[in-house]
Amino acid sequence: MYKNAKPILEANEDSITWLKGENSNLILKTRAKTIVCLPHIASLVVPGKTLIGAENPKEKFIELTKDMVTGPPRIITGKNFIKGPGTVIGIEGFNYSVTEKGISKFPHFGGVIIGDNVEIGANTCVERGALGDTFIGDDTKINNLVHIGHNVKIGKRCLIVAQSGIGGSCVIGDEVYIGFGCTVKNGITIGDHAFIGMGAIVLKDVPAGEVWVGNPAKKLEKP
Amino acid sequence: MYKNAKPILEANEDSITWLKGENSNLILKTRAKTIVCLPHIASLVVPGKTLIGAENPKEKFIELTKDMVTGPPRIITGKNFIKGPGTVIGIEGFNYSVTEKGISKFPHFGGVIIGDNVEIGANTCVERGALGDTFIGDDTKINNLVHIGHNVKIGKRCLIVAQSGIGGSCVIGDEVYIGFGCTVKNGITIGDHAFIGMGAIVLKDVPAGEVWVGNPAKKLEKP
Amino acid sequence: MYKNAKPILEANEDSITWLKGENSNLILKTRAKTIVCLPHIASLVVPGKTLIGAENPKEKFIELTKDMVTGPPRIITGKNFIKGPGTVIGIEGFNYSVTEKGISKFPHFGGVIIGDNVEIGANTCVERGALGDTFIGDDTKINNLVHIGHNVKIGKRCLIVAQSGIGGSCVIGDEVYIGFGCTVKNGITIGDHAFIGMGAIVLKDVPAGEVWVGNPAKKLEKP
Repeated sequence: MYKNAKPILEANEDSITWLKGENSNLILKTRAKTIVCLPHIASLVVPGKTLIGAENPKEKFIELTKDMVTGPPRIITGKNFIKGPGTVIGIEGFNYSVTEKGISKFPHFGGVIIGDNVEIGANTCVERGALGDTFIGDDTKINNLVHIGHNVKIGKRCLIVAQSGIGGSCVIGDEVYIGFGCTVKNGITIGDHAFIGMGAIVLKDVPAGEVWVGNPAKKLEKP
Repeated sequence: MYKNAKPILEANEDSITWLKGENSNLILKTRAKTIVCLPHIASLVVPGKTLIGAENPKEKFIELTKDMVTGPPRIITGKNFIKGPGTVIGIEGFNYSVTEKGISKFPHFGGVIIGDNVEIGANTCVERGALGDTFIGDDTKINNLVHIGHNVKIGKRCLIVAQSGIGGSCVIGDEVYIGFGCTVKNGITIGDHAFIGMGAIVLKDVPAGEVWVGNPAKKLEKP
Repeated sequence: MYKNAKPILEANEDSITWLKGENSNLILKTRAKTIVCLPHIASLVVPGKTLIGAENPKEKFIELTKDMVTGPPRIITGKNFIKGPGTVIGIEGFNYSVTEKGISKFPHFGGVIIGDNVEIGANTCVERGALGDTFIGDDTKINNLVHIGHNVKIGKRCLIVAQSGIGGSCVIGDEVYIGFGCTVKNGITIGDHAFIGMGAIVLKDVPAGEVWVGNPAKKLEKP
């Protein structure tokens, strides 16, 4: 029986987890003993694993974990962490599923890990992770009124200017600059040293070192 | 004499109200006994009504109500209403008129009515109504750093993602999705089941069921 | 020896200041006795002045002032100043320099000066000036979730709608309208009576009286 809920590659033997999509190889890699997955994957025989098949594995996972106690978020902060007034660290993410039965919310067991010398301005929101943690790397600076979604991983020495928003599960590299008032879609990856110009609406992954601007954001070619 | 100030169709016999524009038919429909309106409409004879004509009825209404006590907003919340830290419910709207005499503020007598199972994240602002109420329907979920203007009516089971803004007096239907970082102009109507893509700047009414994206937002045609 | 740090034209005899760029004429105009500037300018002989040359004068200035006590911001508010809940006045600006040595922060000695009859909504952020003050003129109204950067100067009777952002060191004239969800790049000047339409991303100076819209914002020509 499971005692906690974790992301598939961070799970331990006491975990329940879920598999999004078709990559059944992850079932061999995860340490979780209980995995919710698509029905044809659940029909595989994997010794020591309990596979639970569902047409909508995410919904099934929500159902199976709905009575687990999520508790307050674990928040770990590095040395010299500075946080402005009104900034909220660890609120639950906006992670809803809409089905015929109504709106269900994905559980939030995760926390927030903040590195050394991180500074966050005023009235910014950093959401806790759903199963894993939200992470902000050393020396990263975040301005006022910024939204950092659940599960976001931000590297080191990034600058994120006021009123920008980073959608849930984004992965931001090291030394990335995200300008004033940008919006980055959930699940996007932005490579190291990328520069996102102010007001950009980022809908696609941004390779390392590139400059992207506009709505929708596109690579700025050097003239 | 009037004892309260109400929207023209929500008024009672003790109300003062005002008519915007030419629809004099509303003077027959309203229960208010005192109505500020354009001069040529005020010249009509309507038994039992006191019609006050002014070239700028809104300004005249502000003048006539400026000594009425607005008091704190009436805030009614449904069962299972969840509100994140820093979220402000019931602040006055940004409803200023600029005339030769300076800047005058429309009075705010209205409140906020929030349905069952509504969840609002952190550092969001929901303004009280001016004369009527701001309304958020059952099961609607609102993320962090969102602005909901005065008099806005939001339907049931809507999702409004972080950093979006809904201008004053907008009417949002049921099961509408408003993506990350959208801005919806004051007075806009968005029909049921519409989907507004992230970063959209919505300047026109959106019919039910349509998908709109971009700045300015336009209907996304299916490929 | 210097006892305070001020902008070059606001300095007094006890000040250290720094010169950005080539305008050596300012060294004759400033009352500061200690000025950090480019090496070829520092080679000039100016009686009574101590010129300190550096390839990166801003970085050198940061180094020379890093042990000076900045203290809490001086905040001066005019009569009838109204501030909504969650609004933060006087937080330090997002003024970082990235060099090979890492990220350094420009010191903030400045304050915030707010005129008469100013109203600011909820969850807005107004940053203190770096060396000078951030300034908001009489009768200006600012809505919710707005970001006002460090050193910004805003004139009289401006209206700044919700979720707009004004970058550091912008100069906004009198009776300027900045619509819902606009972003104005740091250092921009917007002339008197200009109108910035909602959702505009303003990257260039806007002359007085013009209407600008879009991303990037451009002048709206009358049809």
